[in-house]
Amino acid sequence: MNAMASAAFVGLARMDGVSVANRGLAYGDGVFETMRVHDGELPLWPGHLARLREGAQRLGIGLPDPAFIEACIDEMIDGADAGVIKLLLTRGDGGRGYAPPVDAQPAWTLALYPLPPITSGGLCLHACDTRLAIQPALAGIKHCNRLEQVLARAEAERAGCDEGLMRDSEGRVVCATAANLLVHRNGRWLTPPVARCGVAGVLRGWLLAQGLVEEAELAPGEVEDAAALALCNAVRGILPVSLLGARKWAAHPALTELQARLAMAYPMFSNPAVGA
Amino acid sequence: MNAMASAAFVGLARMDGVSVANRGLAYGDGVFETMRVHDGELPLWPGHLARLREGAQRLGIGLPDPAFIEACIDEMIDGADAGVIKLLLTRGDGGRGYAPPVDAQPAWTLALYPLPPITSGGLCLHACDTRLAIQPALAGIKHCNRLEQVLARAEAERAGCDEGLMRDSEGRVVCATAANLLVHRNGRWLTPPVARCGVAGVLRGWLLAQGLVEEAELAPGEVEDAAALALCNAVRGILPVSLLGARKWAAHPALTELQARLAMAYPMFSNPAVGA
Repeated sequence: MNAMASAAFVGLARMDGVSVANRGLAYGDGVFETMRVHDGELPLWPGHLARLREGAQRLGIGLPDPAFIEACIDEMIDGADAGVIKLLLTRGDGGRGYAPPVDAQPAWTLALYPLPPITSGGLCLHACDTRLAIQPALAGIKHCNRLEQVLARAEAERAGCDEGLMRDSEGRVVCATAANLLVHRNGRWLTPPVARCGVAGVLRGWLLAQGLVEEAELAPGEVEDAAALALCNAVRGILPVSLLGARKWAAHPALTELQARLAMAYPMFSNPAVGA
Repeated sequence: MNAMASAAFVGLARMDGVSVANRGLAYGDGVFETMRVHDGELPLWPGHLARLREGAQRLGIGLPDPAFIEACIDEMIDGADAGVIKLLLTRGDGGRGYAPPVDAQPAWTLALYPLPPITSGGLCLHACDTRLAIQPALAGIKHCNRLEQVLARAEAERAGCDEGLMRDSEGRVVCATAANLLVHRNGRWLTPPVARCGVAGVLRGWLLAQGLVEEAELAPGEVEDAAALALCNAVRGILPVSLLGARKWAAHPALTELQARLAMAYPMFSNPAVGA
């Protein structure tokens, strides 16, 4: 998928591409947000900004003025009916060596992409061998150290599946490579905690804040015998899972209900017609 | 520290900087090598190439023709008495999403830096709170997901120390942020394994292959009561540690002997005169 538009900023200056000295490139020293664009707006912006702020704070990267970021985003998405905007904030340039430069000038980029096709058909999920390492210092934030997700997603592709289900190194189920997991058990929607590893998804956060979903630790067997399974993220909304290994799930009313609750608050996440 | 020269390559084409779509920038999706330059040559090149090859293979990134890489390095370091060259190999450009593009065109860069000052005075080592997560899929290779090292090195800087000593999430001592650890106990030099986390340093590999150092798991107490402690990497050689928290070490003949063995094979790593 090619970007429709992109721009990079260092401090307040707009530039093309990034320097080979950029620490995002050298060490994945940065954070990013991937956001749904709808009618020239970002419906979940406050959640994205909060996670961006948390990530920048945790890594000690200076956050550019949010009002300036918002102005740049507005300029880029003005007139865009639908799309995805990616914001990448890096620590900026540095020399050799891991020590963050004391005078680091954060560099950040924006890129606008077309909205990916979103179907209501159930997803095929591959149980990945690649595990998520347990690292509380980096858990929850959307940092740029994503090799585990890259390896896991490559596994899912090789298996001909839509997404990959990831466990942590102690065997607990955590999330998909680019989405959080929603597990329906005993009449409740559950999602695994992300304090040890995984990303605190913005839509996951909204579902938790609404009391529609609760956090719970989940073993692989508890996912396999769930009544319904779904993935959620801030680009695609809530998508049903229909296949995980030999296990199949049919449509479930609790999932239709959860999607409807989301669509009431955010109509752009309305479930597309079957086959759409 | 500023680069003296740098160049980026995509496939066989030389270019300035990298695209904002580069997956090294997006996800740390790449590997790197940092190599000592001496008299227009790279003394430890075979070890660096072997690790580069292993890293590229593990991540599924195509390795450019080593003969072409060598020719580009030769051109850059021609006439350089001393320096450090950094090679960064990324998966190249991609769109949004973790899945490695099937037609990915690896992009790689070279940058030449001045040799950092190397003193023979003992290093101050800070015991870092930041742990190394246990991730066998990424252990050993020099990949670009280095936020743990960035956070740990920032801790060491805040503590006014030269380097940071890192433990894994289960408490075993592993390495420094940018060097391997050498621990002298009971008349032997030991270094922790790097199969679960940490980087398989090229100089560490040489020391092991020579039978001068052995692998052993080490608890923090076994490091603290060691007879001598040192760090090693392929840029600075073997450097004594003189301080870790309240523990101090004086010069030790076993360390002088180990440095001498290295200097016999690689004179550029000769121990500089005290005070140099």
